[in-house]
Amino acid sequence: MRVSKLVSERLKDIPNGVVAKSHSLLLRAGYIKQVSNGIYTLMPAGQRVSLKIINIIREEMNKIGGQEVLMPVVMPKELWEKSGRFNSIGQEMVRFKDRNNHDMLLGMTHEEAAVHLCQNTIKSYDQLPYMIYQIQTKFRDEARPRAGLLRVKEFTMKDAYSFHTSQKDLENYYKKVYKSYQTIFKRMGMKNCIAVSSDSGMMGGQKADEFQLLVEAGEDNIIICSHCDYKANMEIATSIIDKVTFNDGKLQEVYTEDAKSIDEVSNYLKIDQKQIIKAVCYAIEGDPNSVVVAFIRGDKEINEAKLKKIVGGDVVVKDISEDGLVKGNIGPIGLTIDNAILVFDKSISGQKGLVCGANKEKYHLINVNMERDVKVKTYYDIAKVSEGEKCPICGHPLNIKKGIEVGNIFQLGTKYTKSMGMTIQDRNGEQINPIMGCYGIGVGRSLAGIVEELSDEKGIVWPIAIAPWQIYLSPLRMDDDNVKLKAEELYKSLSKKFEVIYDDRNVSAGIKLTDSELMGIPIRVLISPRSLANQGAEITIRKTGEKIMVNLKELKSFLAKTCKELRRNYE
Amino acid sequence: MRVSKLVSERLKDIPNGVVAKSHSLLLRAGYIKQVSNGIYTLMPAGQRVSLKIINIIREEMNKIGGQEVLMPVVMPKELWEKSGRFNSIGQEMVRFKDRNNHDMLLGMTHEEAAVHLCQNTIKSYDQLPYMIYQIQTKFRDEARPRAGLLRVKEFTMKDAYSFHTSQKDLENYYKKVYKSYQTIFKRMGMKNCIAVSSDSGMMGGQKADEFQLLVEAGEDNIIICSHCDYKANMEIATSIIDKVTFNDGKLQEVYTEDAKSIDEVSNYLKIDQKQIIKAVCYAIEGDPNSVVVAFIRGDKEINEAKLKKIVGGDVVVKDISEDGLVKGNIGPIGLTIDNAILVFDKSISGQKGLVCGANKEKYHLINVNMERDVKVKTYYDIAKVSEGEKCPICGHPLNIKKGIEVGNIFQLGTKYTKSMGMTIQDRNGEQINPIMGCYGIGVGRSLAGIVEELSDEKGIVWPIAIAPWQIYLSPLRMDDDNVKLKAEELYKSLSKKFEVIYDDRNVSAGIKLTDSELMGIPIRVLISPRSLANQGAEITIRKTGEKIMVNLKELKSFLAKTCKELRRNYE
Repeated sequence: MRVSKLVSERLKDIPNGVVAKSHSLLLRAGYIKQVSNGIYTLMPAGQRVSLKIINIIREEMNKIGGQEVLMPVVMPKELWEKSGRFNSIGQEMVRFKDRNNHDMLLGMTHEEAAVHLCQNTIKSYDQLPYMIYQIQTKFRDEARPRAGLLRVKEFTMKDAYSFHTSQKDLENYYKKVYKSYQTIFKRMGMKNCIAVSSDSGMMGGQKADEFQLLVEAGEDNIIICSHCDYKANMEIATSIIDKVTFNDGKLQEVYTEDAKSIDEVSNYLKIDQKQIIKAVCYAIEGDPNSVVVAFIRGDKEINEAKLKKIVGGDVVVKDISEDGLVKGNIGPIGLTIDNAILVFDKSISGQKGLVCGANKEKYHLINVNMERDVKVKTYYDIAKVSEGEKCPICGHPLNIKKGIEVGNIFQLGTKYTKSMGMTIQDRNGEQINPIMGCYGIGVGRSLAGIVEELSDEKGIVWPIAIAPWQIYLSPLRMDDDNVKLKAEELYKSLSKKFEVIYDDRNVSAGIKLTDSELMGIPIRVLISPRSLANQGAEITIRKTGEKIMVNLKELKSFLAKTCKELRRNYE
Repeated sequence: MRVSKLVSERLKDIPNGVVAKSHSLLLRAGYIKQVSNGIYTLMPAGQRVSLKIINIIREEMNKIGGQEVLMPVVMPKELWEKSGRFNSIGQEMVRFKDRNNHDMLLGMTHEEAAVHLCQNTIKSYDQLPYMIYQIQTKFRDEARPRAGLLRVKEFTMKDAYSFHTSQKDLENYYKKVYKSYQTIFKRMGMKNCIAVSSDSGMMGGQKADEFQLLVEAGEDNIIICSHCDYKANMEIATSIIDKVTFNDGKLQEVYTEDAKSIDEVSNYLKIDQKQIIKAVCYAIEGDPNSVVVAFIRGDKEINEAKLKKIVGGDVVVKDISEDGLVKGNIGPIGLTIDNAILVFDKSISGQKGLVCGANKEKYHLINVNMERDVKVKTYYDIAKVSEGEKCPICGHPLNIKKGIEVGNIFQLGTKYTKSMGMTIQDRNGEQINPIMGCYGIGVGRSLAGIVEELSDEKGIVWPIAIAPWQIYLSPLRMDDDNVKLKAEELYKSLSKKFEVIYDDRNVSAGIKLTDSELMGIPIRVLISPRSLANQGAEITIRKTGEKIMVNLKELKSFLAKTCKELRRNYE
């Protein structure tokens, strides 16, 4: 490819409003272009990287027996009504009516289509397990697209679906996919991609893992044990917290003036925050009249992802004054509100001597004894883990890191095969619903994630396995006939063996060098009147900055060796 | 791939309502599955064929300098408002509002996105020409999807867009793409794919060619000269028709009782149909009050595609009694209707002694002299060509064949670059709008077209270049230990060199042979207790039915040779 012909914008400055590093670099180096909020075009260089990522995924999926298919982007309502998701998924799913007034939708995931595909195709247990996958465009009407390719509306995704006769068989295959994913992300060139336990979210399964690329720009909080192998997304992470005991006493009302927040009450009564019962009020999304009150130890925060699972729907913080509750003075004793769902966190289970709101202005209750005064049936874990709390497995301190979710795997169970009536005959001749797993990888998010992880102040640093080109041929002084002649010769001969981008522009050395660094091509081959006088070319390794003078006669073999070395890390 | 694991439905009977051969065979052999009207899933075998077709297209596009990109499926209204197509395209374009109430649409073509992509990326004349292309999902809300993959709503398409400084440069590049398309369809294995001149339709360009695969199932009528190189889609085809002269006379009204149709009038007055002026009434789509009256020689039909271009909009046949016209007695003389657009076909230009409706019940006019009585300003060509009429180039008889449009190429001009304000600097420093070409290939339609062209009564006959697998390994009597052992061995060793589908099922010889033929795999390798007794395998060539006994020792080299021979035709 000649740079002069490459369809690619090169921007000097970070575009307005662009914050994420990958967003800025991919725009500036001409890999992507925004078409609409959260919707991007991949420019030629970007599509080259994307195709290489896709190729790695495809190879590894085929290795574990994946059968590639292509399911539709547009699906009819009927398919999604069977699983119940046509109604249960919110605004992020695009719905429209076709010309015949049929309800249609844009696929954001394809469990329903996968079951439809496999229904009646494989009917007997001895043909299981099998896995189908596709690499395809999906659309999710994100409320807040951001950070370039990291959170978009339209994206290319590999999604795979496996079918099993037993939970055990699913678990075995799940491990296989888990390993395959490790290989895939390694082959792409990611350094710090880890698998963490996660919430199964709207997929509705029993066990799920996310592959998180640990970088500062990540949106997810990942809890990692400093000692053992425990790793979990904040959404489901648990911890052991220090139990504190307080003296028991007689339940009584005390005047607390205007003290309402945990800080204020703790200061007013001169007690530890841990002694206070915090109350947070929510409504269930879609039902503004509902009231959920969550109680937790004063120094802890509510993990809404956990709470959501317990109450069975998304929760939104609610101003409860309309419900007759006294903001800042809510407590579990004497709470008179109909149909409220009360959820108690484990952090206050069995505690005595606590303080809570008295459900009237200017008063709190002291000496609350949970067992004696509240009589909670079930305590749940609805707490956010904080840095330094103890690992639930080994007791060592937990750390929090930021991650980008580049892939995820789910044990789905029979949610979809059951609701859609897919059966196979088992060993005993009975009809059973096969057990499913599903497995996703975001292609564009992986691409952007790698830029987040590997770029430096000069630009992108592509791993050679997914670089759009391996070699940036950069002749300086294209006005020099000898340089030009030699450059054209080299371009021709190197292209036979390598993927070469050839900077044939008649621009300054500065622009050429800056562009090659910004674009992140792994190996730069520079020739100039001076290097040619010595029959040589100057090689620069993008990753290390290392410069080597190589005799032109040995150039090809040197480049082959260098490519091999750079590649070695990923295979 | 083991047949036992292949996710694929094999149907014995032609599904209800399925008419087209390719539709039936692709369903029955497990290549596709319908999800909704006009929306299909590609099963693993189907996706394998599709990927091979895509690969051929990609290789050939890269050879002529194409730069692959990926533009979005979902686009904002604003992009399409600039070109005017947001409003000009009808119901076949899906429009919806996103969660923020923004108007969005599903791309059915990407001229606007291509201009958006290239705008500001290449700014100087010396960087032109260049071409970008993508292989991507498109959605077109077809009113009448039919015939499986031949006419669908959702489809995978290769679309390419080139940019030029001059019409001449576009024409040169257009020829290059034309040749590239010939190569592509030949490599896919098509036998009778021809390029024909066509209408540029909603693209709005000056010159267009379609690549039509000539098969009975085709929806398009293609006019082909029996002698010279003239080939055109019926929509734009012209012909020379025999001029007939009639005696001039005095214009007069005659009683014609209830004679209304051309047949009736011709019988009643005992005159040749060619002597009558036929009138057909239309409205312009979207404007039900409009009236278009088209006049043509009695024995000819109106070509609505041509008429549409003249009146500037789609036309729909109209019942004109509400407009005060007398159905069956309409003529160009004394036609009193406001704002009607009258269009006259060349077939009646300069004619005398004609008969037309008198615009009142039971009467016609005779001795109509067009020049004397009607005074038409411009005659147009709005006639459908009929079989046997004379070629407009060489005068020899024309034939009509059925074709499937598998690709098309357009010279677009500056319609999009102008309306969207894309400019480049020309040689003289002036800002000009680059001239565009655009080039499409339907992947699924090509796939189905090949099935239409090459299948036989037993099933599909894939060309080896796009066959999902090259070899169908079919051991008979899998219950025989020796057969099974040998089959597993062969599967392993052949898979190293060929793409093999291995029928490991313990089913009857009949099912195995029928399935291999239905699926259309080019080479079948059959082993059985008998063949093994002779150390041999029986090879069957799907295309010819030829059977050859080959010694197992020579099997690999024999298969390599056979693959090469089968491949030779396409390269």
